[in-house]
Amino acid sequence: MEEKEISQAVISRLPRYFRYLGELKDEGVERISSQDLSELMQVTASQIRQDFNNFGGFGQQGYGYNVEYLYDEIGKILGLDKQHNFVIIGAGNLGRALGNYMNFERRGFMFKGMFDRDPELVGRDVRGIKVRPMEQLESFIRENDIDIAVLTIPKNSAVEVVDRLVKTQIHAIWNFAHMDLDVPEGIQVENVHLSDSLMKLSYNINRYMKERGKS
Amino acid sequence: MEEKEISQAVISRLPRYFRYLGELKDEGVERISSQDLSELMQVTASQIRQDFNNFGGFGQQGYGYNVEYLYDEIGKILGLDKQHNFVIIGAGNLGRALGNYMNFERRGFMFKGMFDRDPELVGRDVRGIKVRPMEQLESFIRENDIDIAVLTIPKNSAVEVVDRLVKTQIHAIWNFAHMDLDVPEGIQVENVHLSDSLMKLSYNINRYMKERGKS
Repeated sequence: MEEKEISQAVISRLPRYFRYLGELKDEGVERISSQDLSELMQVTASQIRQDFNNFGGFGQQGYGYNVEYLYDEIGKILGLDKQHNFVIIGAGNLGRALGNYMNFERRGFMFKGMFDRDPELVGRDVRGIKVRPMEQLESFIRENDIDIAVLTIPKNSAVEVVDRLVKTQIHAIWNFAHMDLDVPEGIQVENVHLSDSLMKLSYNINRYMKERGKS
Repeated sequence: MEEKEISQAVISRLPRYFRYLGELKDEGVERISSQDLSELMQVTASQIRQDFNNFGGFGQQGYGYNVEYLYDEIGKILGLDKQHNFVIIGAGNLGRALGNYMNFERRGFMFKGMFDRDPELVGRDVRGIKVRPMEQLESFIRENDIDIAVLTIPKNSAVEVVDRLVKTQIHAIWNFAHMDLDVPEGIQVENVHLSDSLMKLSYNINRYMKERGKS
């Protein structure tokens, strides 16, 4: 299937479709109409059809979608039929939390290595993976077919680490450092800025309180 | 200042402005033109002006923005001039990682309590906060002026906990459970779906590899 350029907004919605379809599949649902999917997911049926049309449509209107087929196809579009090996850089609380999260493996994301520059943390064990010193980063990435680096380090050390990472074979950085990364084309970055998310929540609380105060 | 309805897209960008302005302020920069801010943040100057016009503009074109004033004003819009008290529900790795994250306090988000239904975890200490049993949730929220609940529990227990939370005084849920929450109007929800974020990264790796394979 030939893919055209898909907007990041559409791509952002794909994991959510995948999640709902996975639940329907687990419940034994075989077919679902775009109308029913629309009610379940609280998006318009026309939005769903538009999103799916980016990928050829996946099924006939009026007849509904085959849940398992749609689940598998969206999984393939998301690259979940392939294995991705990742390392976590930063063995603090957040890094360890991500290392301990088993669900990533169900989707083909395999936790292979963990690094920290703090000698106190080197040698510790996170779910069977020993924390290594930063000196071994490049050789480990090369020898273990790593394609994703997860950054759970403070922003003051992130720049230097990213400079090292972009010279390796990795394809992507999942960035939890509280800064925007400057990487060459060909390295994908997905940011999880927790503070930004909390500020957005704060904005919405604040706005709602103001509105309520006014009315 | 009278606020009109602002789109969530604009709101999503505010924390990033706030972050860059904070860095400029720390570096002692007093004024910045929308052009320079545009280059720094890699968004168009017209986008910046449009975003700021939602809040009255903040400054004169040609003369540039006063960095400290702009930082403070955006902080106020984000509600960061107010204190927010939060509890974390779920004392697993992720919950503990968030509890240990000091930076939230710098923005007025105060970590007040932590809860878990696992008797093994109750009584443990996370940065001076003892993990409490779930039975105490409602009374603790009431007595400690809690307005944000952070959910770091698996999705199978999230529904029941959310049912309890919506009957309390809380204004917001910061949701790390891997599901969409059904809450009444007046309770703000901000989702951090880590698996969704990782799938988006996977999509972008996959798409890039395909394109490169083709060319």
